[in-house]
Amino acid sequence: MYNIAIIGVGLIGGSMAIDLKDFQNVKKIIGVDKNEEHISVAKKLGLIDESMDLTQAMNTCSVIILATPVDVSLVLLPEILNMAQKHVVFDVGSTKGKLVMAASKNPRRGRYVATHPMAGTEYSGPEAAIPNLFKSKSVIFCDTDKSDADATKLVSEIYSFLGMNIIHMNTKSHDLHAAYVSHISHISSFTLALTVLEKEKQEKNILAMAGGGFDSTVRLAKSSPAMWTPILLQNSENIVAVIDSYIDILNAFKNSISHKNEDELNNLITQSNKITRIVDKFKNKVELANLS
Amino acid sequence: MYNIAIIGVGLIGGSMAIDLKDFQNVKKIIGVDKNEEHISVAKKLGLIDESMDLTQAMNTCSVIILATPVDVSLVLLPEILNMAQKHVVFDVGSTKGKLVMAASKNPRRGRYVATHPMAGTEYSGPEAAIPNLFKSKSVIFCDTDKSDADATKLVSEIYSFLGMNIIHMNTKSHDLHAAYVSHISHISSFTLALTVLEKEKQEKNILAMAGGGFDSTVRLAKSSPAMWTPILLQNSENIVAVIDSYIDILNAFKNSISHKNEDELNNLITQSNKITRIVDKFKNKVELANLS
Repeated sequence: MYNIAIIGVGLIGGSMAIDLKDFQNVKKIIGVDKNEEHISVAKKLGLIDESMDLTQAMNTCSVIILATPVDVSLVLLPEILNMAQKHVVFDVGSTKGKLVMAASKNPRRGRYVATHPMAGTEYSGPEAAIPNLFKSKSVIFCDTDKSDADATKLVSEIYSFLGMNIIHMNTKSHDLHAAYVSHISHISSFTLALTVLEKEKQEKNILAMAGGGFDSTVRLAKSSPAMWTPILLQNSENIVAVIDSYIDILNAFKNSISHKNEDELNNLITQSNKITRIVDKFKNKVELANLS
Repeated sequence: MYNIAIIGVGLIGGSMAIDLKDFQNVKKIIGVDKNEEHISVAKKLGLIDESMDLTQAMNTCSVIILATPVDVSLVLLPEILNMAQKHVVFDVGSTKGKLVMAASKNPRRGRYVATHPMAGTEYSGPEAAIPNLFKSKSVIFCDTDKSDADATKLVSEIYSFLGMNIIHMNTKSHDLHAAYVSHISHISSFTLALTVLEKEKQEKNILAMAGGGFDSTVRLAKSSPAMWTPILLQNSENIVAVIDSYIDILNAFKNSISHKNEDELNNLITQSNKITRIVDKFKNKVELANLS
């Protein structure tokens, strides 16, 4: 049995804390957060047993979960590895390249496992933490050949307890696929929100029309800049490429519409419908697992 | 009491049929659909009492709901008005300009009420019909000064029974706002699906990453080309303008990311977050109404 320190008690760290309370291997869950309000809410909600500063937490816990925004993780990871002995350290950030590079020369690199659980909501902070957030979704493990086998094994046990399906990928592939599936979804939602807000100065017009599909497509535009600004900057090369592809396709829509090219427009929509099968497969897997 | 003909027994027509069965003013619901499979499913599911061809339906029913894709409505509306006597005719299409223009010179123009219920799902066909689809959402009535008062009154009673909040707008404003809130949401989803499908030839990568917000943002990309191609073509001028605004904002994201302009990127995301309050207000209104 071991104590776990969660650095950054927000949506992800807090949701992990809720589930891990019931894990037989876990003794205590210690919260570390510069934001005192987060700590106070996390205690009040019973997410954490105690709060400590980072050094105390390293002395008390053998498992360290780094769940801060990725710019903060980039600063903290080397500090944590410098203090680490037999500790197992893993992060949960949405970009992996810069973090893995920051750890690469560290003599304790083997104690670190780079992971990205593909789960979340549009909300943030400890009050957004929910049980079963991770259940039956995927977690990406990156470059585990650089991690000690016992560290990878322990982190795998934790994610298995959370109900996640572990997928191995190298860091470069992860950041590319994350840009194309997760990060662009957020940019698309932010852009939709801004387009509508710029044009529709009157809230009542948006409210009147919101039932026409707007509400779900714009959901991710609630996501916080503290989390997303550093993600988009750390994965900038992939993201600039995916924005270019996205604009090319928007221009294909625009051209087919302005030239009244019905066949071409029909074809674009028909092609995009192919996503249905994949998204339904994902949804069924999650729903099925939650029934059982 | 009156008989109602529903022309086009799909998601919208079928969902109206389910709810209107319990409306005290309604005797029979007659389905009219060129697609024999739709008629057969609609009968099997009990959505309609009988099926007829259009002429028979005009002879049997005094209320006509035109719920076909908007290109079909553009052909049928003049035919229906030519046959109309005391009938009340309304359509439920997502664009209004072309339809209202097609009706404008007809001597029976007054019998027609142009409406757009802002409700739907990403599915289509009679098997997608669900109860309470319209409850506590908005319906836009356009140019009711051109409709006979008794026709507008009867259509208002139907929508009030469905639980909808009636909003009046002129046709031009409707088509503009629909482009900026509803239609662009669909284009944004179609484009996201195509961007991902073009890049990610391997389904497993999309499945692995789908938990990161992709699934909700891409939901509307399931929407059918039969419905959406004619909507986008009929509202082409507004839609081309909104795509241009959308691309301008995407370029603002791209520039702030490629130039590592953290303040600018932070500002864009913070501005887009303002949509949260409006979307939450919409969601609360719908949820509250469904609880009561």
